[in-house]
Amino acid sequence: MSEPVFRDDMLVELIDNMGDDKRVVRAARVSTGKDLAIPGEAFETVSGLIRFLMKNRHGTPFEHNAFTFRVECPIFVSREFMRHRIASYNEESGRYKQLDPVFWIPAPSRPLIQEEKPGAYVLKPGTMDQYDYTVRTLKTVAGAAYDAYERILAEGVAREVARACLPIGIYTSFYVTFNARSMMNFLSLRVDDPDSAYPSKPQYEIEQVALQVEDVFQRKMPVTFRAFRENRRVAP
Amino acid sequence: MSEPVFRDDMLVELIDNMGDDKRVVRAARVSTGKDLAIPGEAFETVSGLIRFLMKNRHGTPFEHNAFTFRVECPIFVSREFMRHRIASYNEESGRYKQLDPVFWIPAPSRPLIQEEKPGAYVLKPGTMDQYDYTVRTLKTVAGAAYDAYERILAEGVAREVARACLPIGIYTSFYVTFNARSMMNFLSLRVDDPDSAYPSKPQYEIEQVALQVEDVFQRKMPVTFRAFRENRRVAP
Amino acid sequence: MSEPVFRDDMLVELIDNMGDDKRVVRAARVSTGKDLAIPGEAFETVSGLIRFLMKNRHGTPFEHNAFTFRVECPIFVSREFMRHRIASYNEESGRYKQLDPVFWIPAPSRPLIQEEKPGAYVLKPGTMDQYDYTVRTLKTVAGAAYDAYERILAEGVAREVARACLPIGIYTSFYVTFNARSMMNFLSLRVDDPDSAYPSKPQYEIEQVALQVEDVFQRKMPVTFRAFRENRRVAP
Amino acid sequence: MSEPVFRDDMLVELIDNMGDDKRVVRAARVSTGKDLAIPGEAFETVSGLIRFLMKNRHGTPFEHNAFTFRVECPIFVSREFMRHRIASYNEESGRYKQLDPVFWIPAPSRPLIQEEKPGAYVLKPGTMDQYDYTVRTLKTVAGAAYDAYERILAEGVAREVARACLPIGIYTSFYVTFNARSMMNFLSLRVDDPDSAYPSKPQYEIEQVALQVEDVFQRKMPVTFRAFRENRRVAP
Repeated sequence: MSEPVFRDDMLVELIDNMGDDKRVVRAARVSTGKDLAIPGEAFETVSGLIRFLMKNRHGTPFEHNAFTFRVECPIFVSREFMRHRIASYNEESGRYKQLDPVFWIPAPSRPLIQEEKPGAYVLKPGTMDQYDYTVRTLKTVAGAAYDAYERILAEGVAREVARACLPIGIYTSFYVTFNARSMMNFLSLRVDDPDSAYPSKPQYEIEQVALQVEDVFQRKMPVTFRAFRENRRVAP
Repeated sequence: MSEPVFRDDMLVELIDNMGDDKRVVRAARVSTGKDLAIPGEAFETVSGLIRFLMKNRHGTPFEHNAFTFRVECPIFVSREFMRHRIASYNEESGRYKQLDPVFWIPAPSRPLIQEEKPGAYVLKPGTMDQYDYTVRTLKTVAGAAYDAYERILAEGVAREVARACLPIGIYTSFYVTFNARSMMNFLSLRVDDPDSAYPSKPQYEIEQVALQVEDVFQRKMPVTFRAFRENRRVAP
Repeated sequence: MSEPVFRDDMLVELIDNMGDDKRVVRAARVSTGKDLAIPGEAFETVSGLIRFLMKNRHGTPFEHNAFTFRVECPIFVSREFMRHRIASYNEESGRYKQLDPVFWIPAPSRPLIQEEKPGAYVLKPGTMDQYDYTVRTLKTVAGAAYDAYERILAEGVAREVARACLPIGIYTSFYVTFNARSMMNFLSLRVDDPDSAYPSKPQYEIEQVALQVEDVFQRKMPVTFRAFRENRRVAP
Repeated sequence: MSEPVFRDDMLVELIDNMGDDKRVVRAARVSTGKDLAIPGEAFETVSGLIRFLMKNRHGTPFEHNAFTFRVECPIFVSREFMRHRIASYNEESGRYKQLDPVFWIPAPSRPLIQEEKPGAYVLKPGTMDQYDYTVRTLKTVAGAAYDAYERILAEGVAREVARACLPIGIYTSFYVTFNARSMMNFLSLRVDDPDSAYPSKPQYEIEQVALQVEDVFQRKMPVTFRAFRENRRVAP
């Protein structure tokens, strides 16, 4: 019997990306026929135009930059991620392979308690007892479920049937590609920033994914990222 | 403690639909400026044009018909369904409500054994013993998982954390809206028809969903459906 | 030789629509599993939920309502319309038919003068002389172009070649289908409302189209429309 | 008055691209969890998997490669191009700038005569006389239209109004970004190949664009391109 592994991290690896801040400027400039005269441009000009585009929600010039990531996360996170339709996905398949016994448990720092307020959604830290009980219980269920999974497989039953007992906390992996505009929409919904014009309350785990995506965004398109933040995370 | 319920059916309910076969004709006819002269049209003309469009893969005239369904199925099926991006979804949330203890088990008629061939994917019936063992095991895991879920909730922990132990065979419900073209693409991938030009091997359970979608399609757009079949299920 | 016709109106005809305000509520309620209990609902509840969804930019529940329009407008307007990609189109074809000699001229009330300001875009009324000169010139060019078009056709040359001389002010007709969410995005960009959170300066003619779309929206989904306006035309 | 320029070429310039054939393999392999073991792979393995994906229309692994092009073409071509919705565009604007007097005329090799057959669409070479007459007429109309455009502008009227007289054969420029799957769909519809499973009869000019796109595709993803051809241009 396979020994289960427990993780509380989200892995986000940049596979490739295309374009930088100047690409946005070049694409935008085609509207006035000035797209061919960019290379030597001063930073201030690039920055000014990008801030103008962001503020006025001219979104299309941000669609010529692309990012591909490889993500490892629990299924309940991949389910949320894949609701973003202006993106491309390929995911590990429970039909084509036996899933590995890797399961999510909350990190000690993960807020556990949800305050019930109409229309709101606030999470607070739990006690040590709550944490211990939760982790212990999740581990027990995951271990028993994976054991059952392997026993059903051992009977010769198809993976696609046996997997029905596996918990949604099991890890999956996938590739996702999106352009910078779609990525900003993703970030506006999956990062909880009190300065947002339209604050969102994402699940903690997808926010851990989003923050890593954001980190790449900031490194690869610093001017665009700053304009996005200044504009209170309203995706253009 | 809540008593688990086990189901092997997929529920597909038509909520609403827009347009019929004549709508396709009308939209197509705008290309030649003859869209305003349809009402009294003979069946043969409607049928002839639709078959022509299908055969030559002129897909856009099929996009002005829309269908909204309410679906109840296991999460592993909704996950496959929601990979179809040219569609609109709203799904039950494990963050906003306590999920009900309703779980999938295979129907006795469900093929259980997968033949391993490179590049192929063939399922065959299992033995009674395999069936009994699988169902018994799935039930045990589901019951224990839901019990654990409720105990974690009873400790005051958030639903979004506790749900991590629930199996992907738990039922969910969602609304989906798509146009006839996107629906045909869905059917081409989710129904296993040996006459298809590009045969697909969908998981049995999503095929049970797709066959019900197809039944509605056939009733509401009989001419289009026939042309789709004649054209060997190549979505236009 | 065909006599040219000159128009200054935009025709927008509702062909069909699916769903009303209650459909939005029903789709949204599936997240908490309460979607099956709506029919007898009070207006206040419907309105309250829709306003909540709009304010917090929960957009997907607005995607299960669909609208199909037939539009007649100049090509320079259809070009702007068809940049909206989350929509379905079928348009009159200059390859499959001889285009009719119907051309756009500005209405007397159409602002003619553009004030040049960096980053702004303001139009003001022209003088009677400017109007007369513009209309007279547009008419002359359109007439000569259509005459040339017919002469090239008379030589036996293909429509797809001959059409190259036709002005972008020639009328076209098309069908468009989109859902309520995509329609709100269209309206947020194509109606100039000083109360908008992100004001847009659309070309006057596409705004004439958009205002008619908006009129249908208001009639068919009055609660959603009011919430959209209250939310300063930020599409959810 | 500006002197008109006449062109019969389509300019397609690769601005950037992301990913190669191996990217497709890597994305596809995540389904079986083998995506991390590719680098040293033999050509035969890459080729075999790509051909398998293409033949069985597993399309998503081809979505992680992206291409950005800058295109110069007449408006009647850009209108056809932009009907492809799974793509990103930024185009020169007749509202933000005065359009340049660059107009399309057919090349001498361009077939001019359309054979009228029901459901078919065949073009054949014209005579020298037909060619001369067509070019002369197109040039005359274009020159007169641009002259009128400049005169209306000189009266102080807005560009967005004056442009209504410009012919659809005037050149525009735009940026387009799409992934390899969407690009193959574009090519399947915009290249006329008698070996296609679903032959298409695109306008000659957009085919001139498509053939240049195809040339880049072939250079950057030779294995995928060959599989696409072998599969009779059915986009996966």
